[in-house]
Amino acid sequence: MARLWVPIVLINFKTYIEAVGQRAVTLAKYSAETTRETGICVAIAPQTPDIGRITQDLDVPIFAQHIDPYLAGAYTGYVLPETVRDAGAIGTLLNHSEHRLRMDELEASIKRAQEAGLTTCVCSNVPAVGAAVAHFNPSMIAIEPPELIGTGKAVSKAKPEAVTEAVTMIKQVNGKIPVLCGAGIVDGSDVEAALDLGAVGVLVSSSVVKSKDPRTLIFDLANAATKYLH
Amino acid sequence: MARLWVPIVLINFKTYIEAVGQRAVTLAKYSAETTRETGICVAIAPQTPDIGRITQDLDVPIFAQHIDPYLAGAYTGYVLPETVRDAGAIGTLLNHSEHRLRMDELEASIKRAQEAGLTTCVCSNVPAVGAAVAHFNPSMIAIEPPELIGTGKAVSKAKPEAVTEAVTMIKQVNGKIPVLCGAGIVDGSDVEAALDLGAVGVLVSSSVVKSKDPRTLIFDLANAATKYLH
Amino acid sequence: MARLWVPIVLINFKTYIEAVGQRAVTLAKYSAETTRETGICVAIAPQTPDIGRITQDLDVPIFAQHIDPYLAGAYTGYVLPETVRDAGAIGTLLNHSEHRLRMDELEASIKRAQEAGLTTCVCSNVPAVGAAVAHFNPSMIAIEPPELIGTGKAVSKAKPEAVTEAVTMIKQVNGKIPVLCGAGIVDGSDVEAALDLGAVGVLVSSSVVKSKDPRTLIFDLANAATKYLH
Amino acid sequence: MARLWVPIVLINFKTYIEAVGQRAVTLAKYSAETTRETGICVAIAPQTPDIGRITQDLDVPIFAQHIDPYLAGAYTGYVLPETVRDAGAIGTLLNHSEHRLRMDELEASIKRAQEAGLTTCVCSNVPAVGAAVAHFNPSMIAIEPPELIGTGKAVSKAKPEAVTEAVTMIKQVNGKIPVLCGAGIVDGSDVEAALDLGAVGVLVSSSVVKSKDPRTLIFDLANAATKYLH
Repeated sequence: MARLWVPIVLINFKTYIEAVGQRAVTLAKYSAETTRETGICVAIAPQTPDIGRITQDLDVPIFAQHIDPYLAGAYTGYVLPETVRDAGAIGTLLNHSEHRLRMDELEASIKRAQEAGLTTCVCSNVPAVGAAVAHFNPSMIAIEPPELIGTGKAVSKAKPEAVTEAVTMIKQVNGKIPVLCGAGIVDGSDVEAALDLGAVGVLVSSSVVKSKDPRTLIFDLANAATKYLH
Repeated sequence: MARLWVPIVLINFKTYIEAVGQRAVTLAKYSAETTRETGICVAIAPQTPDIGRITQDLDVPIFAQHIDPYLAGAYTGYVLPETVRDAGAIGTLLNHSEHRLRMDELEASIKRAQEAGLTTCVCSNVPAVGAAVAHFNPSMIAIEPPELIGTGKAVSKAKPEAVTEAVTMIKQVNGKIPVLCGAGIVDGSDVEAALDLGAVGVLVSSSVVKSKDPRTLIFDLANAATKYLH
Repeated sequence: MARLWVPIVLINFKTYIEAVGQRAVTLAKYSAETTRETGICVAIAPQTPDIGRITQDLDVPIFAQHIDPYLAGAYTGYVLPETVRDAGAIGTLLNHSEHRLRMDELEASIKRAQEAGLTTCVCSNVPAVGAAVAHFNPSMIAIEPPELIGTGKAVSKAKPEAVTEAVTMIKQVNGKIPVLCGAGIVDGSDVEAALDLGAVGVLVSSSVVKSKDPRTLIFDLANAATKYLH
Repeated sequence: MARLWVPIVLINFKTYIEAVGQRAVTLAKYSAETTRETGICVAIAPQTPDIGRITQDLDVPIFAQHIDPYLAGAYTGYVLPETVRDAGAIGTLLNHSEHRLRMDELEASIKRAQEAGLTTCVCSNVPAVGAAVAHFNPSMIAIEPPELIGTGKAVSKAKPEAVTEAVTMIKQVNGKIPVLCGAGIVDGSDVEAALDLGAVGVLVSSSVVKSKDPRTLIFDLANAATKYLH
């Protein structure tokens, strides 16, 4: 099974048409190649129906974009952590700004994911939410100030104090939780800025998925992180 | 691509652990075999991550359990009709009693599914809701009186007037929409009762998925429908 | 208790700060005065905490903006139809574009409102949804094409075919349900256009609430409807 | 305006029919009388349409059962903190087990309530959620282990370690946030047990509202807290 390490570049495919089906496989292949070339962990989060298609041929760390907190049973239309793990995922995003969760359900979802052996990457908007999430012991927390999402302005540059404040508040609750930076990561310099501020990786999406040359961009993002490789 | 015809036996896998991953493939195989033996259309609705795994080797009509009404874009954690179709589904359930939808979203979801070439099977609880749904032109409507779900009492026997009333009200709106019976279908006699009342098929779940001998039960359900084969 | 008749001008206060507390009472007073002067039924839909404050001194027909479909019990933070009726409301809006409901809950909410003796005015977006809603036997249906909401372009003028199509489809299901026009009603000419197309009233909001002279505008809207008074 | 102090007995009226309209006023009167007799702060949380009816004649601290995090505007059917404050409420419950909130919305709702000058009492289920909530700086946190709600078994007796663990975890985040005990409070001995464990009050509901003699029970609950009065 695919492993995770840091620094990490985690690419969220969302429901972009450019990242569905065979195109999801192609992006996954670029990710695996970049990992081989740079030593940086490049992980992807495709739509759930595409997970199995990718893991069939490629060894790339895959996150689901969401799982539901239910136990197996009568929950038509929901997705269990066990099902995405069986399809080959090793983790899941949770509480993305496009898919916010109730607080009690987030706590339960993290537990359920862990029971199923999935790594959890929980998104948060403001530093106080990041600190609150830390009490639920997720594997990672991704900071995404909502005002920067989709702007092309990286939080690590446009609002560095949001990163350092969140990192500080999260570490006060639990010093072991790695923090990723999301929102507005466009190129390698944004990755460097994020890692300089105490993050161990980035969460990116449209800049890669909608790029004319996603292969090169994935390489650039990962390459910028190599100086933090131990 | 797999076809649909009537009579139809549609098996909802829900999130039952007995119907995940390789076990989903096994149930799909039983379904395909039953179709070959009886001539009845046996379709299945697995969890989305399992769709591709099944269609890879088997030619069985697959419904997603749910799709979201969004266009491709920034909708982390949701599932597009195009994605499940690319994975091999030919249709989707919508508005199941365990996954009710807002009225405007149901209308939009049916349209989106049709744009993506998916057949829609929309669940309804009371006859008035069935009639209302008919205005949105779904491919099929499944009637599931909530008070019978999971009781082992088939609506077709315990509450036949609920079936005939729903069939009548739906036909008044749109005479071409086929009606399925759900809730409490346990054996072949329930299927017969449903078809006698004007339904063209059944929607079943736990009775098959949790059966000690699902292969035999699937065959029995389908076999009971053969006298309605033209 | 206040009565309802047609033509009707129904003013939705939403959560506008200009229509809260004592300002809600002032708008209610203008409405009552306009009714006395014109003979047109002017009704209002304030926030729930303001209902009692208004009915204490004024005899004006009041709609809640929403009620929940629950029976009395353990539902913290929800609002029962009986509670708003006890506070003096005679009806409730349901399924407003800013507060869409699940289809099964809408059906149940209409029933619950009727049990509590409340008139229901159910909002719908497209004609097919209007027709669907008609199967639930609401007291009135308000048509609000979402693309016109808040534009200042009245549906009755900008998209008259949306009104006539909705009226026709609703009447085919149930000829007795009166239809109101919402979305973009700005002045008396919009009211006339709406009534000419077969509506019996209008649902207005920001144009009145945010008007510099709401008293005059309420009068103008009502006055434009007087030629339809029998 | 009504004040708050500790120890506090906070009575949630939910949507119980025994606590609507004039019956809400009667319960409020008992609460005010008990406060005068015992010196204990007895506060109530009626349905929003009843707030104004109570504050008109009585000086009793009133909490809304819920407010929405929106700014004034086009949010039909929602309730602003300003509106319940104008009706006479001094605070609001948030995130009750019957009305859970998204994490980001809870954070925003607490801020909005504070802007409107409302005290916030935020409910939490497990200790980790209590600690997480503490990062949002609510005025109070109420602990309600879901498995005890409505059982008649007080958390303070049946699961004292849940109280002490929650109190400890909350105090580690912010030592100034008072903690209330909810779930299963039936009589004065439950109140004593709660205060002995470090809580400063209780959140009760059905035991009072559905009591044959609510006046006596309210007195008993408050009286049990008097030894903690300073």
